[in-house]
Parts: sequence; C-alpha cells; structure tokens
Amino acid sequence: MRIMCRLLPLSLSLSIALFPSAASSADTPATPAAVVAQAPASAWLPVPPEDLLVLRIRGGHRVVIQLAPAFAPRHVGNIRLLAARHWWDGTSINRVQDNYVVQWGDATEKKPLPPGLSPTSAQDYVMDLTTRRMRITPLPYADPYAAATGFSGGWPMAMDGGSAWLPHCYAYVGVGRNVSPDAGTGAELYAVIGQAPRQLDRNIAVVGRVVDGMSVLSSLPRGTGDLGFYTAKERKTPILSARLASEMPTATRPRIEVMDTASDSFARYLRLRANRKDDFYDRPAGGVDICNAPVPIRARN
Amino acid sequence: MRIMCRLLPLSLSLSIALFPSAASSADTPATPAAVVAQAPASAWLPVPPEDLLVLRIRGGHRVVIQLAPAFAPRHVGNIRLLAARHWWDGTSINRVQDNYVVQWGDATEKKPLPPGLSPTSAQDYVMDLTTRRMRITPLPYADPYAAATGFSGGWPMAMDGGSAWLPHCYAYVGVGRNVSPDAGTGAELYAVIGQAPRQLDRNIAVVGRVVDGMSVLSSLPRGTGDLGFYTAKERKTPILSARLASEMPTATRPRIEVMDTASDSFARYLRLRANRKDDFYDRPAGGVDICNAPVPIRARN
Repeated sequence: MRIMCRLLPLSLSLSIALFPSAASSADTPATPAAVVAQAPASAWLPVPPEDLLVLRIRGGHRVVIQLAPAFAPRHVGNIRLLAARHWWDGTSINRVQDNYVVQWGDATEKKPLPPGLSPTSAQDYVMDLTTRRMRITPLPYADPYAAATGFSGGWPMAMDGGSAWLPHCYAYVGVGRNVSPDAGTGAELYAVIGQAPRQLDRNIAVVGRVVDGMSVLSSLPRGTGDLGFYTAKERKTPILSARLASEMPTATRPRIEVMDTASDSFARYLRLRANRKDDFYDRPAGGVDICNAPVPIRARN
Repeated sequence: MRIMCRLLPLSLSLSIALFPSAASSADTPATPAAVVAQAPASAWLPVPPEDLLVLRIRGGHRVVIQLAPAFAPRHVGNIRLLAARHWWDGTSINRVQDNYVVQWGDATEKKPLPPGLSPTSAQDYVMDLTTRRMRITPLPYADPYAAATGFSGGWPMAMDGGSAWLPHCYAYVGVGRNVSPDAGTGAELYAVIGQAPRQLDRNIAVVGRVVDGMSVLSSLPRGTGDLGFYTAKERKTPILSARLASEMPTATRPRIEVMDTASDSFARYLRLRANRKDDFYDRPAGGVDICNAPVPIRARN
C-alpha cells in the first residue's frame, strides 16, 4: 500500500533511469554514453570534407550527410557531381512516411540531370570483400538478415559470403529508384526514420548516413498521400541548397568526427550496448542488433 | 551514356518502387500490403473498448493505445484506474528524444496518484508461459536478443525458456520508472519512435502499442534538453484528456481491428515480410526482424 500515495520520481531521476548516462566509476564506464564521453582523441576520426553533403532546408536548418564512397562509389560520384552543379537547390522534401523514410528530390520530375553521371546497376548495391583488405570488428550476435554483421572504417556492415553492404539503419541514406534494372542515379534520396527496413538491403544503394540534423528530418509532418507523399494541399519542405563541405568556405564547413570502429573505445561501447548492467538495467540483453549499436558520431560545430 | 539526360522517373512510379503496394495477381498477392488489403473479415479481430486508451492532445489530435492486459496485468490495471480518475488530463508530453522515445506524464512531479494502484515489481516485466496455453505463431528467424520470437493473440513476443515478453518495437508503449526495484506505476508512459531499443526488454514493463495517431507523436519537435526533455523555453504538448474507450459514448469510440496472428492471412503476410520478390524487390532477405513485421492494425473510424 506504500505505493499508493507515492509521488512520481523526479523527472531527472526518470531521465537517468530511462537512459542512464553517468558512469559508476571513471575507470570502468558502465554505460555506452560514458564510454563515448571518455574516449580519447585518438579514438575519433575526422570525416574528410569531400564526404560531407550539407543540406540547408526551410527555416535555415542544416542536415549533414556523410557519404560512403567505399560502399557505393558510383552513386557517391554522382551525388558529388549533382552537388557541384547545385542540382538540389530549389528541390524539396516530398515524402515523409512514418516509420519508414523521408525522401527528397525534384518534385516536378522535369529537372534535367547534368551530363557526366555514371551509369549504375544492381552490382553497385554490394561491395566485393574478396578483393579488399579490411579490418573488420565483428558483431558476434545473430542477425535475421545476413550471415554476419560487423564494423569497418567507421561503418556498420552486413555480410554474406564474399560481399558486404551498408544496412538500412535509422538515419541511413539510400537512393530512390524505379523498378529494376534501374538502380537510381543518386538524385532522388531518402533517409530512414523508423525501424530499420532491412528488406531493402541489397535491393537499393545505401550511400551514407545523416550525421547531424537528423531530427530536422524525422520530426517533419508526415505526408497524408499514398506512401507518405505530400498531397497538393500539403507544403513540401524546400531544399535551399546542397553542397559538399569541400566546396564551402573552410570556416563554415561542418566538422564531423566518427568513432574509429577499430578502437578500444568502440569495443567497450559495443560490449555495453549488448550488455547493459548498471543502476537502471537489471537484466543485460546479451546481444544487440547491428542497427541498435550506432557508430558514435559527433559534430564539432 | 543513355542515362545522362534521362529524366527522373515519375514520382508515382518512384513511390510504388520504394514501397510496392500492388499485387501482381489477385490470387497470389505478391506484397505484404496486398495480403492485408485482401484479408477476409474473419482474419480481423476487434479490440475490446476496455483495452483502448484514447489520448486527446493539443490541436485535437487523437492517439489511441491498445493495452496488453495479458502481458502486463498489474500495470494495465493501474493505467485503467488512472484513466478512470482522469489523472492524465492536464498533464503533458515532456520528452521527445530522437530515435528513442516520446514520454508523457506529470511534469510538475507533484500530482498525487489516486488510491487503489497495485504495487508492481520486476516480475511483471515477463509472462510465465509455463502456466498458460497459448497458440504461438513462430517467427523462424534469428533474433539477437531472445532465444525465440513469434506472435500470439495479435501481439509479437520474444521468448526465452519459459517466459515471454512484448518487445520494445516502434510504437510500443512502456512504463517509465525510477531505478530498481521501482517498476513504475503506469502513470509515466513512453512510446518508441525509432529503432527498437530492445535493451529495455525485461528491464521495464511494456503495456501496449499505439494503434492510431502514431505520427502525431513521432513528428513532435525533439526536446533539446538532456535526453530529449523539453527545456523551460520549449513548449510541452498538453494532454487534454485520456480515457478508456469503454468510458466514452459508443458513437465516439475508436474502432480498432488487429489481424489475427493465427490466421492464414497473417502467415502469408509474414512470409512476404521476410521474402519480398516482386516488381521492385530482386533479392528476398530470407528473414525478418520481429519488430519489422508489425501486426497489421486498422482503424475503422
């Protein structure tokens, strides 16, 4: 009966409770957030400016996308070219489907693409591992979609036989396309805003991830048309500009750092993502999904 | 070079492409959406009004939560009592953390709880399967968090030994709590708005799921305070009322139907969620995550 008149816990306690962020000791961080906070500078890798696509959308909001040239070189090449030609300036976000994707591109469907784009095919959806030497940090837990999962070069990977691909995790960016054999140019893009739609893996090119400003996209009003497309009555969100950071003045470039997935800090982070046992968590899961162990990323400006 | 001057595909084609909804034939639906659209009336089960919690929030938006008394009877009993006492009227949504949760309750932390709430404990986080006879539709794919997953009575389940629990999938509703041994009363609730935070499974009570109006919650502005709590400068979203549908006039009650997870339609739906092969999908995944095969639900009004 003691509980009857009990007041709710303080919201600070509740917040710590629902997502603890404090370490129980400085030497042995008990939470993933504490490991990230205490990671040494050597555990962080700067993202080169030619791998950062910076969108400015209505309201002056900034969305920064890290491109993954190692995984989708042709599509990323096209995206760099489209940005250099200012192709997305004046286009818009046209689709927001709850628990699925935010999608942007040319709503008029008439804007000519610039010359010089590379042709793409379904072969571009996966990376051939047999021809590469990569240091892979395995994630030793079962995955319903792939034979194995792990991390390399700051990216999560799903793997099967001799190939690897970027999984469709939250905030990951893919290339819209028409029915096969069309594989998309890179002009029509989407970001995942819900449970990882891994059924799209190896059916579409994943070209990167949103590394800053994700909540600008995820909190947009959902479209009420079929598949979340905005109807004529709804307001599309204008894209004011899209630029590679390498083409921006140095002072205004976003500075993004990604945790080195080969670092000790990342190994500790992974262990704790899979095994929470601290003031709040009584029962460690003993495993973690590849999309529920996001590579730590920080924006320095 | 053909691709250079090619216009983008029509957005209708694109939309069908990114999430096909048409069947290739009426007899053998090729997509999960087509199976759902063609499911007979017998494949749908109405949700009893005492299992529906109806929130009205700022702007007149309706959010309907289906409670899961079979999985969390004490917490659900408390939630029904709190609704009957109109306890949430005048409370607010206080936290929106991107890719995690929307949380609501009494921001003043001073509102007395009504008498009659049941005490709760960690034992209430799981269901004892050994004492029940349940028809379970297994999901025969690996899960990183549990020995097995499946569906029963319209709900997804994760299972381990003799126990079962509702997984923390997108739109699922859990009970905020303080540090253990506190197990929460049910007054502080949250809904998942991102990748399933399954590390919370068996560490917290899951009491149901949002079955209508989810996008009202998921598109709220993210809080900029720690852990997504709104700061003093940000506007909390007022909850105007929270009622059990059974206490509403019949004409205004939401009518929600859930697909029978023991039906043939659901079996076909599951197979296609795991194996997309249609005009758009070239490469079936051969598996699906328990949280990426949401039980079909429809609102009839």
